Amino acid sequence: MAALRARTVLLTGSNRGIGLELVKQLLGGPRPPAWIFATCRDPEGPRAQELRDLASRHPNLVLVKLDVANPSAIADAAKIVEGKLKGAGLNLLINNAGIYAQVSLETVDSEEMIRAYRTNAVGPLLMAQAFLPLLKKAAQNSTEKGLSCSKAAIINISTVMGSIQKTSESFFKPVISYRCSKAALNMLTKCQALTYGEAGILCVALHPGWVKTDMGSQEADLTVDTSVRGLLSVLPVLSEKHSGNLLNWEGKVIPW
Amino acid sequence: MAALRARTVLLTGSNRGIGLELVKQLLGGPRPPAWIFATCRDPEGPRAQELRDLASRHPNLVLVKLDVANPSAIADAAKIVEGKLKGAGLNLLINNAGIYAQVSLETVDSEEMIRAYRTNAVGPLLMAQAFLPLLKKAAQNSTEKGLSCSKAAIINISTVMGSIQKTSESFFKPVISYRCSKAALNMLTKCQALTYGEAGILCVALHPGWVKTDMGSQEADLTVDTSVRGLLSVLPVLSEKHSGNLLNWEGKVIPW
Repeated sequence: MAALRARTVLLTGSNRGIGLELVKQLLGGPRPPAWIFATCRDPEGPRAQELRDLASRHPNLVLVKLDVANPSAIADAAKIVEGKLKGAGLNLLINNAGIYAQVSLETVDSEEMIRAYRTNAVGPLLMAQAFLPLLKKAAQNSTEKGLSCSKAAIINISTVMGSIQKTSESFFKPVISYRCSKAALNMLTKCQALTYGEAGILCVALHPGWVKTDMGSQEADLTVDTSVRGLLSVLPVLSEKHSGNLLNWEGKVIPW
Repeated sequence: MAALRARTVLLTGSNRGIGLELVKQLLGGPRPPAWIFATCRDPEGPRAQELRDLASRHPNLVLVKLDVANPSAIADAAKIVEGKLKGAGLNLLINNAGIYAQVSLETVDSEEMIRAYRTNAVGPLLMAQAFLPLLKKAAQNSTEKGLSCSKAAIINISTVMGSIQKTSESFFKPVISYRCSKAALNMLTKCQALTYGEAGILCVALHPGWVKTDMGSQEADLTVDTSVRGLLSVLPVLSEKHSGNLLNWEGKVIPW
C-alpha cells in the first residue's frame, strides 16, 4: 500500500468522529505530515479535549478555530495557516466538517435546509476559495506529474446518501436536508475538478461508509478505525483519472 | 399525442419565459384546465402585464402573488387556492420559478449560493409541503390507477446543468450556485417520488432544454414555444415508471 506523502494537511471538523480519527492515524502513520492543521469550531471547549491532548504530544499538530459556516472565520484561519507555513504550500485540504439532522419531507423547514447547505456544501466551497493560493503554491512547488494528494488536493467528505441514483426504496432514509446538501457537494466536487485541475489540484468526494460515530450512531456498519484506514489507503492512489468522482472508503466509484 | 387532462394546475414563476408560455399553451389547448393558478412575485407589477391581459380574457386563469423564497407567502397562497377550489383538489403543481446567476467558483460568495438554493431547491420543497393536502385530495378523488399528471403530480422544472454526470469539460459553464441548487432539486425530486408515491402523487424533474428566454439568452437552441410544446407533450405520458426521474422536453431520461 502506498503511503500518503502529503507534507501539509488541513482538515475541518477534526475534534471528533472521522475527523479526529484522521488526525490520529495521520500522526501515527509511517511518515507523518510536517504540519497537520486540525480545525474545529471550538478548540478551547470541552469537546476538543482529545485533540488538545494530541497537540500537547505532537508539535506538528496545530489546532485552528474555524466554523465553516462563517466566511470571515475561514478567512481568518487561512491567514493563520499561511503564517505557519512560511512560504510553503498546502498539499491536502480535507473538508470533513458536516452536519446531519433527522428530518423528513414532512418535518423539515426552510431554516434546516439552509443550515445544512451552509455547512455541508457552501462551507467546502468557501474553504477551497480561501485555501486556493496555498494549494496552488503546493502544486507549483511539486515536481510530480499529474494530480495526487501528495501534490495538491481537495477531498470533500461526502456520502452515498448524496447519490441520487443510490436513493431508492430499499435504501431510503428521509434525511432530506442532508441528502440535498450532499448532492450539491457532489456537484461542487465535479465543478472544482473541472476548474482547479489545470492548476494541478486533484478534487475528489469520498464516502467514508456508515460509521459508528455520533453522527452515524452505534448501529452503523463500520468502526471509525476501519473507515479511516480505508480512506487513508485510498488517498495515496488517487490520480487525475479519479478527479471529479465520488469514491467510497474502498476506492470504488459511486454513481451520482 | 395524449392531451393533458389535469383539471386544476398551479405554476410558479408564470409571468415570463417558460412559465408564461406554459400558461398560454395550457389556456389554448384542446381541453383547458378548469383552473390555472398562475403565481409570480408581483402580479400587479409591470412585468406581469401579459399575464394580466390573459387573465382578463380567461376566467379560468387566476393570478396569485407568491415568492417561493418566502415561506409565509407560500402558506398565504395555499389558503387562497384552497378557497377557490371549494373542496376540489389540485392535480398538477409545476415548480417553475428559478433564478440563475453568472458566477464562477472564483466569484461566487456565500450569499449567492444561499440565494439560489432558497429559490431553486428549498422553494419547491416548501411548495410541495404547502400544497400536499390539495394534491392528496386530487389523488383521492381520482378513479385512475397508477400515477399520472391528470391525477396528482409535482413537476419540478430542473435542468441538465444540475446533472453531475453531464457536467464535463465539453459542457462546462461555471454557474456554480445554479448547478449546485439544481443538483439538490434533483435529489429532492427523487425523495419526493419515494415519499409521496404511496399517496398517489407522481414526482418528476423536467429539463426544458436551453431556451431563448431572459434566463437562457437569445443564443439558446430552442424557442420557448418548442420547449413548452415538448414539455406539455411529455406530461400526459408520465406514469409511475417515470416518477423520481429527470427527463428532458422530449421525454428522454437524463442521468444524474
